[in-house]
Amino acid sequence: MSTISEAIFYSEANQNRFIDELIDLLRIPSISTDPAYKKQVAQAADWLVNHLKSLGVTNAKAIHTDGHPVVVGGIEVDPNYPTVLVYGHYDVQPPDPLDLWISPPFDPAIKGGILYARGACDDKGQLFMHLKAVECWMKTSGHPPINLKFILEGEEESGSASLPGFIHKNKDLLAADVVVISDSSLFAPGVPSITYGLRGMTYMEITLTGPDRDLHSGTYGGAIHNPINALAALIAEMHDADHRITIDGFYDRVRPLSRREQITMTVLPFDADAWVREVGVHLPIMESGYSVLEASTSRPTLDCNGIWGGYIGDGAKTVLPSQASAKISMRLVPDQDPSEIAELTEVWLRRRVPKSMQLQCKVLHGAQPVLIDTESNAMEAATRALRDVYDCSPYFTRIGGSIPVVADFKHILGLDSVLMGFGLDSDAIHSPNEHFGLDRFAEGIEAILRFHAHYAGTGSVKA
Amino acid sequence: MSTISEAIFYSEANQNRFIDELIDLLRIPSISTDPAYKKQVAQAADWLVNHLKSLGVTNAKAIHTDGHPVVVGGIEVDPNYPTVLVYGHYDVQPPDPLDLWISPPFDPAIKGGILYARGACDDKGQLFMHLKAVECWMKTSGHPPINLKFILEGEEESGSASLPGFIHKNKDLLAADVVVISDSSLFAPGVPSITYGLRGMTYMEITLTGPDRDLHSGTYGGAIHNPINALAALIAEMHDADHRITIDGFYDRVRPLSRREQITMTVLPFDADAWVREVGVHLPIMESGYSVLEASTSRPTLDCNGIWGGYIGDGAKTVLPSQASAKISMRLVPDQDPSEIAELTEVWLRRRVPKSMQLQCKVLHGAQPVLIDTESNAMEAATRALRDVYDCSPYFTRIGGSIPVVADFKHILGLDSVLMGFGLDSDAIHSPNEHFGLDRFAEGIEAILRFHAHYAGTGSVKA
Repeated sequence: MSTISEAIFYSEANQNRFIDELIDLLRIPSISTDPAYKKQVAQAADWLVNHLKSLGVTNAKAIHTDGHPVVVGGIEVDPNYPTVLVYGHYDVQPPDPLDLWISPPFDPAIKGGILYARGACDDKGQLFMHLKAVECWMKTSGHPPINLKFILEGEEESGSASLPGFIHKNKDLLAADVVVISDSSLFAPGVPSITYGLRGMTYMEITLTGPDRDLHSGTYGGAIHNPINALAALIAEMHDADHRITIDGFYDRVRPLSRREQITMTVLPFDADAWVREVGVHLPIMESGYSVLEASTSRPTLDCNGIWGGYIGDGAKTVLPSQASAKISMRLVPDQDPSEIAELTEVWLRRRVPKSMQLQCKVLHGAQPVLIDTESNAMEAATRALRDVYDCSPYFTRIGGSIPVVADFKHILGLDSVLMGFGLDSDAIHSPNEHFGLDRFAEGIEAILRFHAHYAGTGSVKA
Repeated sequence: MSTISEAIFYSEANQNRFIDELIDLLRIPSISTDPAYKKQVAQAADWLVNHLKSLGVTNAKAIHTDGHPVVVGGIEVDPNYPTVLVYGHYDVQPPDPLDLWISPPFDPAIKGGILYARGACDDKGQLFMHLKAVECWMKTSGHPPINLKFILEGEEESGSASLPGFIHKNKDLLAADVVVISDSSLFAPGVPSITYGLRGMTYMEITLTGPDRDLHSGTYGGAIHNPINALAALIAEMHDADHRITIDGFYDRVRPLSRREQITMTVLPFDADAWVREVGVHLPIMESGYSVLEASTSRPTLDCNGIWGGYIGDGAKTVLPSQASAKISMRLVPDQDPSEIAELTEVWLRRRVPKSMQLQCKVLHGAQPVLIDTESNAMEAATRALRDVYDCSPYFTRIGGSIPVVADFKHILGLDSVLMGFGLDSDAIHSPNEHFGLDRFAEGIEAILRFHAHYAGTGSVKA
């Protein structure tokens, strides 16, 4: 048997124990958003440290941050080998509403080959595949065919506040050739994909103030400008009739889709009608000239995420309010810059604010958009690994959301990430009855092993 | 001494006792909005019944309604005399915030000739002037020179829900020639005014629903229409660049200001700059071609009174919301009709709602606008009475707010109202430290006596 075949055989032979160990980890309610579970988050970090040590990652440790600990550790096989940095997160979403779970969220249950638990897919189940891949190598070849490092955080579900600072402070510790992340989904069951494009974000909160207090709409209505009406007019003007964003300079740095990307968009097995119907909408509305898939993944957006002002209780109150506010976020695409877009937006707003109003403008959040080179060695290795496992080449996809850590690895460490996920959109992550198919757990370990082998240049022998 | 002089002399001679009696009434916390004070509201009604009886209004009684009681009663002197129906309300606003009162709201205090108490001006103090005018006639001439009826409600501060039904059911009981109401203000200290124009209202709540649940703005943003953005666009389109309302047919029934009304608007002692500055605004914004006073009293408006949708907590949440809602009220002027305006608005909205959205439209409230003939006998009598007291003719004014009861008297009983108030805008009604000048209490009684005399045709002899 070749080295890779032995490792895969070992994985298959030990699946039941692997699942038992994962269940042990899933029992720890490591809910990072809720301070009441701080201890349990630390407990999950310690569990991982001990498990990594038991696999032979002897330098594994949990490093304290202002938030939850970061688990690090690595195996240096040979300084001439390429180094893969594995990122994952061991914290989970809150399990509410509890009464909708068919089995308790922290008492994992297997039904029909599917493992139900909070974190089964997002991301304990997926990060654990990388740990088990280490074991497979250690127990067969004695070591992986590459160098491996781990960075496992406990704050992903609460915004990863400590992570950028941690990466900045630990550049040497984290030095690598590429990052691998399994925290995403297959394009469809049995259809692998690698995400190479992520949108960034500028998130702002704006407030218009008219009169210095709420006024009686009978006494003042007609002569005092209403901040809700004025805010609505500003928001309305932010899009034109073609659903393009009207902020001056907004599109200047948008990199157009390449011919190849455009073609991929048309061949991806994506049913736009079904996608729209599934959220209860009659038809999609998007920027003229783009498809649903293009508009939702590869074009910038401007959405009001929240709006409030005046009287919002039951019944009729005739108030002419002093203030109205909105949260407005823009999803950005390469090469837009979040800070520049925030500035352009504020300049645009200030030019249009009525003289009768004051504008307050706050930037709440920014994230860089990301495009990853799809022709790197690592991408090639991942492509071959997934093709080996699924008997079809993975699609390269762009997604509409942001994964801030990918941008952080790029901008702080200069590292590209390979986003190789084994979830499914139907896995109910963040919802009751989160689950993960045991078949995908096994496939994931195999794909990771094959990726290691291909990336090391030793994976060409098929098992 | 003439009859009217005797009555006025009696009033002056008994002022201290009158005030003591009013203080007795003001001690009752008849807060109609708060169910905890239901008993005290009934207690105030009983107090008035007993007081009316003690004045010789022997048929006075409190009539039960679904809400608080209505106090009625009257004196028929001669069926050939004209009959005046006096409207007032004996309920008061809640006194909060209590810590801002310089003396307790229900423990009346006199300081520098000013009576401080909740209800001192609005409206116990003003309705009590009408009761004391009855006493002045009874104790001097033996009866008023006209027939008098009273309708004193206990729900004005909580929306007068029972009153229209009560008026409908008691048309005979309330039959009269004119209504007199003292529940408003002088134009300025020493400057009397009679309000002859009130705006009406159509109050609607609209909701736009896009997707059937809140969506992730990364996954869906760009291809699923956002209901907040769509609602903002609708609201923005409701006004044009001249601040005119764009709803088709909205202005069709608006009666233009007469030449005489336009002239009055320019001579009224109204400082538009100060009025705007006082609410902390740099400049007024109104319909092109109208002054601040015209726009705020005599032109229709459209104001958002409230708006809400999406995430409105602290920080950034990237939600593409399912719904967005707004409360929108339109102040109407004669001869606009609230139901017709609601229909026109809904038709206008339905034509513009994006196909990707559902619109819900609810009418929460409607009130007819009112214009009262300023050349009636009653208006003439009120004009002469105020001129007698203040040595200057009252201004005829239109106000921007609504007084629904005036429209009810007009539409149910066919009666015009004479709005002859003695408050001042600075009396802090609805606020801590509500007060009423004792000088105005005395002037009010004199003006009411003189009105009775002029209306009876016997008031031409000056005291």
